[in-house]
Amino acid sequence: MKSNALKQTWRDGKATLNGWLHIPSTWSTEVMAHAGFDSLTVDMQHGMMGLESAIHMLQAISTTETVALARVDWNEPGAIMRLLDAGAMGIICPMINTRAECEQFVSACRYHPDGIRSLGPTRARVIYGDDYARHANDEVVTLAMIETREALDNVDEIASVKGLDGFYIGPGDLRLSLMGVGGMDNEDDEFLAALDAILAAAKRHGIITGIHCNSVSYAQKMIARGLQMVTLQTDSALLSGAAVSTVNGMRGVQTQSKRTDAY
Amino acid sequence: MKSNALKQTWRDGKATLNGWLHIPSTWSTEVMAHAGFDSLTVDMQHGMMGLESAIHMLQAISTTETVALARVDWNEPGAIMRLLDAGAMGIICPMINTRAECEQFVSACRYHPDGIRSLGPTRARVIYGDDYARHANDEVVTLAMIETREALDNVDEIASVKGLDGFYIGPGDLRLSLMGVGGMDNEDDEFLAALDAILAAAKRHGIITGIHCNSVSYAQKMIARGLQMVTLQTDSALLSGAAVSTVNGMRGVQTQSKRTDAY
Amino acid sequence: MKSNALKQTWRDGKATLNGWLHIPSTWSTEVMAHAGFDSLTVDMQHGMMGLESAIHMLQAISTTETVALARVDWNEPGAIMRLLDAGAMGIICPMINTRAECEQFVSACRYHPDGIRSLGPTRARVIYGDDYARHANDEVVTLAMIETREALDNVDEIASVKGLDGFYIGPGDLRLSLMGVGGMDNEDDEFLAALDAILAAAKRHGIITGIHCNSVSYAQKMIARGLQMVTLQTDSALLSGAAVSTVNGMRGVQTQSKRTDAY
Amino acid sequence: MKSNALKQTWRDGKATLNGWLHIPSTWSTEVMAHAGFDSLTVDMQHGMMGLESAIHMLQAISTTETVALARVDWNEPGAIMRLLDAGAMGIICPMINTRAECEQFVSACRYHPDGIRSLGPTRARVIYGDDYARHANDEVVTLAMIETREALDNVDEIASVKGLDGFYIGPGDLRLSLMGVGGMDNEDDEFLAALDAILAAAKRHGIITGIHCNSVSYAQKMIARGLQMVTLQTDSALLSGAAVSTVNGMRGVQTQSKRTDAY
Amino acid sequence: MKSNALKQTWRDGKATLNGWLHIPSTWSTEVMAHAGFDSLTVDMQHGMMGLESAIHMLQAISTTETVALARVDWNEPGAIMRLLDAGAMGIICPMINTRAECEQFVSACRYHPDGIRSLGPTRARVIYGDDYARHANDEVVTLAMIETREALDNVDEIASVKGLDGFYIGPGDLRLSLMGVGGMDNEDDEFLAALDAILAAAKRHGIITGIHCNSVSYAQKMIARGLQMVTLQTDSALLSGAAVSTVNGMRGVQTQSKRTDAY
Amino acid sequence: MKSNALKQTWRDGKATLNGWLHIPSTWSTEVMAHAGFDSLTVDMQHGMMGLESAIHMLQAISTTETVALARVDWNEPGAIMRLLDAGAMGIICPMINTRAECEQFVSACRYHPDGIRSLGPTRARVIYGDDYARHANDEVVTLAMIETREALDNVDEIASVKGLDGFYIGPGDLRLSLMGVGGMDNEDDEFLAALDAILAAAKRHGIITGIHCNSVSYAQKMIARGLQMVTLQTDSALLSGAAVSTVNGMRGVQTQSKRTDAY
Repeated sequence: MKSNALKQTWRDGKATLNGWLHIPSTWSTEVMAHAGFDSLTVDMQHGMMGLESAIHMLQAISTTETVALARVDWNEPGAIMRLLDAGAMGIICPMINTRAECEQFVSACRYHPDGIRSLGPTRARVIYGDDYARHANDEVVTLAMIETREALDNVDEIASVKGLDGFYIGPGDLRLSLMGVGGMDNEDDEFLAALDAILAAAKRHGIITGIHCNSVSYAQKMIARGLQMVTLQTDSALLSGAAVSTVNGMRGVQTQSKRTDAY
Repeated sequence: MKSNALKQTWRDGKATLNGWLHIPSTWSTEVMAHAGFDSLTVDMQHGMMGLESAIHMLQAISTTETVALARVDWNEPGAIMRLLDAGAMGIICPMINTRAECEQFVSACRYHPDGIRSLGPTRARVIYGDDYARHANDEVVTLAMIETREALDNVDEIASVKGLDGFYIGPGDLRLSLMGVGGMDNEDDEFLAALDAILAAAKRHGIITGIHCNSVSYAQKMIARGLQMVTLQTDSALLSGAAVSTVNGMRGVQTQSKRTDAY
Repeated sequence: MKSNALKQTWRDGKATLNGWLHIPSTWSTEVMAHAGFDSLTVDMQHGMMGLESAIHMLQAISTTETVALARVDWNEPGAIMRLLDAGAMGIICPMINTRAECEQFVSACRYHPDGIRSLGPTRARVIYGDDYARHANDEVVTLAMIETREALDNVDEIASVKGLDGFYIGPGDLRLSLMGVGGMDNEDDEFLAALDAILAAAKRHGIITGIHCNSVSYAQKMIARGLQMVTLQTDSALLSGAAVSTVNGMRGVQTQSKRTDAY
Repeated sequence: MKSNALKQTWRDGKATLNGWLHIPSTWSTEVMAHAGFDSLTVDMQHGMMGLESAIHMLQAISTTETVALARVDWNEPGAIMRLLDAGAMGIICPMINTRAECEQFVSACRYHPDGIRSLGPTRARVIYGDDYARHANDEVVTLAMIETREALDNVDEIASVKGLDGFYIGPGDLRLSLMGVGGMDNEDDEFLAALDAILAAAKRHGIITGIHCNSVSYAQKMIARGLQMVTLQTDSALLSGAAVSTVNGMRGVQTQSKRTDAY
Repeated sequence: MKSNALKQTWRDGKATLNGWLHIPSTWSTEVMAHAGFDSLTVDMQHGMMGLESAIHMLQAISTTETVALARVDWNEPGAIMRLLDAGAMGIICPMINTRAECEQFVSACRYHPDGIRSLGPTRARVIYGDDYARHANDEVVTLAMIETREALDNVDEIASVKGLDGFYIGPGDLRLSLMGVGGMDNEDDEFLAALDAILAAAKRHGIITGIHCNSVSYAQKMIARGLQMVTLQTDSALLSGAAVSTVNGMRGVQTQSKRTDAY
Repeated sequence: MKSNALKQTWRDGKATLNGWLHIPSTWSTEVMAHAGFDSLTVDMQHGMMGLESAIHMLQAISTTETVALARVDWNEPGAIMRLLDAGAMGIICPMINTRAECEQFVSACRYHPDGIRSLGPTRARVIYGDDYARHANDEVVTLAMIETREALDNVDEIASVKGLDGFYIGPGDLRLSLMGVGGMDNEDDEFLAALDAILAAAKRHGIITGIHCNSVSYAQKMIARGLQMVTLQTDSALLSGAAVSTVNGMRGVQTQSKRTDAY
């Protein structure tokens, strides 16, 4: 089976750069896949694609060496298994607040005896190798989103779930839960303290931490802080930013920050 | 953020006219959106569309001032949040039988601190305004379907859930549960008694009641009775009715009622 | 090979009732296919479907005994042949103004030695029989649209093309060309004189004449006049009519004629 | 309502031959529907289709007399009901490990008073008859997958659920759970003992047993053993096998068994 | 009928800013439609969309006041008319080298007596008004691409075609034809001389000139030179530029110009 | 730019094995792309896909080293250029009967000064390299179909067109034109004589010859005869053959040859 390049980079103590897909198009996906990200995540939570477009997008990613990931919209075994069978090399699951929820999530990603994933890796077998089913438990990565106060309170228990590879932080929801207000790329004390608590728990249990960022400078600070996976914006936010900036350049208007997506 | 016109009409004590979409086509949707309904509901329960067509249909509705709603096929937070992110201004949820089920439903439609909706209103933000996330809890409407005897028994408890905007009655399922037989546009005593009980509970808690109808005359009676939202047939039932009536007119055959959809 | 029921009806001197498809959906198509039309035409000229939806719609028609036809957007052999391979049992071709244009059109619908249609009836063979290629020249119907003064002047020459099965009249374009104004279901002298001239030429050459109508009463007059194929409205016009009439019924507004499609 | 041919065959004590669909295409589906299987199953668990393609595929099956079934990816009422409304004449549900899970599954397939299926058989009514809702509980088949040791331990309790029509065995998952290794078409003692235990429980409760096979010879042995439903490979496995065998024939290479799908 | 805002701006002597769509997605289109361009062009020549996606994209543009245009892949009447019926308010046609070719192009965009456009503005009528057919000849804009030496030699004859609204210059093809090399945003003498010759011919005949640009500064120079329509990049080029620049920012690599599209 | 592996194999005097795609699915395409063919041809003439599915299929082929080709439905420059921009590394064009037709075909595949292909290789540039436009004339292959007596009579003139890379023979149409009957894999004298005449002309002008075959044995004979490109069946014919053979194996019926596609 083809190995998952993200895992080696993380084992080497380095950080990976992740792109984020909201546009349900194989063409925009292929453009993103050629841009040089280590991985791309098909976002089935806040993106505009259904399952079948997601599968097509996973195929478009496979035209390059970029690693394909997917985020599901809820902790549901059926949906998780379908994305894995279609070739996602990892799943990001939102709203993991307890150890039990995390166990259910990881179980859906692992074949017996580590979990309850159903055997039938239709596309994954064709593209990653005939021995996929024997090695998938080692190569598929599982990332649990920590985005509520409850999750923060349970962070060590969640981190201890066997088979969990990392945390993924959506700053918007976490801040909304903790501080009553959303926002990205913030550096206020309360948020950074939560971030450090999550990171520390992750390190105690030998797993990585990732985060969604809106700027290169913030992403670099996150890597310096010890996070090993940074996502930069989304495809439609990148497109919107470039288009608005161009139009405003022509109109002689100062571009205001105007993001199409919020976290 | 753009306000939800349905809420103002209801506050004014008036009724709104809703259309119902089963055909997974942006063209039929645009035709319906130009017909003059106050709102259109993309029916993800008994309609023939998947999520991505539903999103395209929400876009087609946005070419007019018609308010876009969606009905989900089950009380699942992931699916509900995706439709809201895609621009639905309200959700109709089937099979709400208890207060707990209603709380879970409403929670999925509301941002912290009123619920657990995840922050990331990708399309909703672009079309309704950059301040969408701050006002969405006030503008998105939540309609719980009362369609079993159990729900009828719990109707006051359900109505009391904070954040619930109304009931929606599918006469077919409610009659099937109460009386062992389906059917639309009925006026027998048992059904009307149930209807009045639901309506009374709604009024006690300051929420509205809507119902699915098959004829203009029945819809008008429902409004006279105090319901504030009436749906008339579905797009494919309207098409089928018009097509069969035309064919029968040519064949010299008397048209029998032949609905493609039943509730 | 399965025979084309339209041809037998026409040989019996009777008229067929045709439906018209503008909505690119297999569900609305299946609803139309169950409404009782003798044939349904997938309109690739003024409809909203691309080729692949057209193929899916031809499949939806095949769930019933309704005969599948298609109208192309121009007299192009490639497009005509693709629709035939996909199972259309006849082609309506717009803008046939000369004998040469008609010969090119018919040639694209016929295998050697009667024409240049390329061998490879992928779907047609599966659904109509393994001997499709040997009998298709006899079963596939070819209908040329007469819609300009030039065509009217050449109507006998056009009618004489071997392999042509009939004329199809789009009243809107023919009236626009002759009288400088469009419109459907008209009975003014100039238009009826043109109609009769076309019908007479058709009868002289043993082919049928069809026409697009907006009402049952006009269609019945056309059959009485000798036409053997009448189309009634389109799917989206039927839907729009039914929806607007329903909304206006609720609003207490008199419905004005409001067609979504014009010819 | 049109009756379900599978039920009559099973009542006659005979076995049915089932095909399996992983390719999200109406054309490959129509090819499979003309191949002579008694039924075809749209596999929403390990197949590559979303819901809307599944509906299109159910339509393509309806161009023939082949019975349409669907497998869901999880025991979720919403998804089950949508496939039934779209015309599936039976549901195969994975991971039924307890009597309660089986009751929930069957309930989603049955109208009141036998279950909680919501009334609104949009497409099913058009293609199977206006009286669909009154007879669907008798015609729709429910097949529970037995694929874990827990299910094996509970097999009699599961079989006793009222309204369950049969068991369906995915050998891969069952072997993985029992023996720690997957694989198809095996005849080792442990697996056959489990198979016989399931079959015996089924017979005690008057329901049938089906199984997924990779070869004609194994399928024939299964029928001889008493199973009444055998599936042979999948569409993409058949395609892959034929393509690889052709290429290897040209290259002078001996074809190795290379399946694109595993169970 | 709704008037075409581009025509008024041009009559006022001002320039319009055009965006260009290569991604076959209604979501990326809606993002572009909210960016502030005066018009967006669905590029059916070098874009990745088929006709049906193009129609969906025209619908997505209609959620804003942005004017919808389309470029066809060849001077074919059938394809041109379909895009107009679907709501394009103007057509850009490549490879217009002679007066006859230009006449054929313009004729396809105009109803009788100005051209041969077929009556049946299915979607255009619904969104622009019931009187669309009477006013469309005045509102639909026609832009002929001048991209060969032959066209340059015939530029006055082409400009004189009645009903032509303007020229559109694809610098890549024009430079390739004239100078044997492509490229965008060039200011060498030979290219500018050709540009001025085209512009002068346009002004002599009272029509506008547009051009495809890769940068704001070049677009501003073009407007200063007298051109009245400037396009800036494409959606996928904007996305690629933003993505590559982000990745390179993270990698500490200097971004090289890397366009995904060339003209 | 990535080089075209087919050209090197042909220069080495060896033959290539081509697969043929009629199923509009990226999954079946990916299965075919992993089967080991040297090239795969997306058949836009007799296949069931529209342009956008064709583009998705070209992407699915790009997940492997298989070379992507496309057949168009007619000799139209617009359609040819779109497939090249989308990444087809060669075009097969039907119905080339004269030198002029062949010149028009080749011209559509070549940039200035060798042809009229429009500059804008949107996807081709991203996947084959930024220098695509400078080298595409050398790498894109052009294959003209010889399928009528007229073409046979003109075969030397056609072969002499600069830039033509080879002939492709559809035996069905050629036999139908020459002998009044279709059929594949024939070895009667008249057909073989025609074949040899085409092959000899090709060799005289230094171009290759390809042919569509239904069996490995016939394909091997064709290679022995000197042809350098053999296609084996189609995806849907392979699927149909495997499915029917399986069903018949279960039924104990002798499988008759039953092809879903004919040439």
